[in-house]
Amino acid sequence: MMPHLLRPGTVLRSSGLGQEQERAAAAVADAAAGHAVALIGSGDAGIYAMGSPALEFADATIDVVGVPGVTAALAAAAALGAPLGHDHAMISLSDLHTAWPVIERRITAAAEGDLVTCFYNPASARRTWQLRRALELLAAHRPPGTPVGWVRDASRPGQAASLSTLREFDPALADMHTLVVVGSSRTRVQAGRMVTPRDYRWAEP
Amino acid sequence: MMPHLLRPGTVLRSSGLGQEQERAAAAVADAAAGHAVALIGSGDAGIYAMGSPALEFADATIDVVGVPGVTAALAAAAALGAPLGHDHAMISLSDLHTAWPVIERRITAAAEGDLVTCFYNPASARRTWQLRRALELLAAHRPPGTPVGWVRDASRPGQAASLSTLREFDPALADMHTLVVVGSSRTRVQAGRMVTPRDYRWAEP
Repeated sequence: MMPHLLRPGTVLRSSGLGQEQERAAAAVADAAAGHAVALIGSGDAGIYAMGSPALEFADATIDVVGVPGVTAALAAAAALGAPLGHDHAMISLSDLHTAWPVIERRITAAAEGDLVTCFYNPASARRTWQLRRALELLAAHRPPGTPVGWVRDASRPGQAASLSTLREFDPALADMHTLVVVGSSRTRVQAGRMVTPRDYRWAEP
Repeated sequence: MMPHLLRPGTVLRSSGLGQEQERAAAAVADAAAGHAVALIGSGDAGIYAMGSPALEFADATIDVVGVPGVTAALAAAAALGAPLGHDHAMISLSDLHTAWPVIERRITAAAEGDLVTCFYNPASARRTWQLRRALELLAAHRPPGTPVGWVRDASRPGQAASLSTLREFDPALADMHTLVVVGSSRTRVQAGRMVTPRDYRWAEP
């Protein structure tokens, strides 16, 4: 944040993770009071972020302009190669607000559909077993050599990335700042890059 | 394109749709010959775009820097509200390079997993029935009132967007420049905006 670049009189409210509903409600209340409000987050505000809670509160009297951004999966994919070159799914492993059986059902669906799968919120200090279980569900439908990409702090200072396989990947590498991408049956590693071909006929021998 | 902003001596090669493999091979050949090459497309180069064909050709002697962008689904989602606030799938309906049964299997998986579903390449002059069939597959698992969002030319001049439902949506509205987003069981329309809540417990009465 560079407050010296803001127009004089601008009020800056910073907050960390948590209290999403309260923050969204406060932003909408300020807008309803006649202020111009920018609700800003990293990545894309519409993907697992403040967009939907804010729009839950905003009635039709409030003008909302959505500005798309680069969500973590796209930043991570660019760092890994082109793993999202064909059909894929985004699934959050946070069971804070979603029941775990719902999440398992989605992972199983992604597995059955042979979708490249991106896991948001793969782990935290308290959520330590979910990613291991998610990988087991995918491994029931994909070969053990399926590429797995791991990116921490995508597009941020200190970005780290590496490639592994369903057989070898250690879920303990993941934390709250990590994005994990598991390939489809067609994904492969080419010159150290994770690539999902767009053209299936071309990919076949 | 603004060629007058390019460094003198820069060679500009423009092309339209098609011949992706040839374009990717040409870009990699230029890089292998020692040139600095920028392979540019709209949206995100890694999502149904030139990233994966280029990386199929590039060997480890070629440095590749992936720059993430805003893929059509994110631009369309921002125009519609926040339909991608929770888990979702991206599926291309182009059967030019992927067999239709594979595509159907993926749509069915997205339906069974209750994933918000974004359809890339929903229709073209020659592909006229695929979107209708895709919506039927989703409708087998979702109520007829499920929101459907439609955006043409997302983030481009002349952008158009509208909301409908699985029961009412007319697939003939879609063409090559259209992105179609079908909500999950939790997606709703709030003040004219398509919103998928992030917090399922909160969304429940």
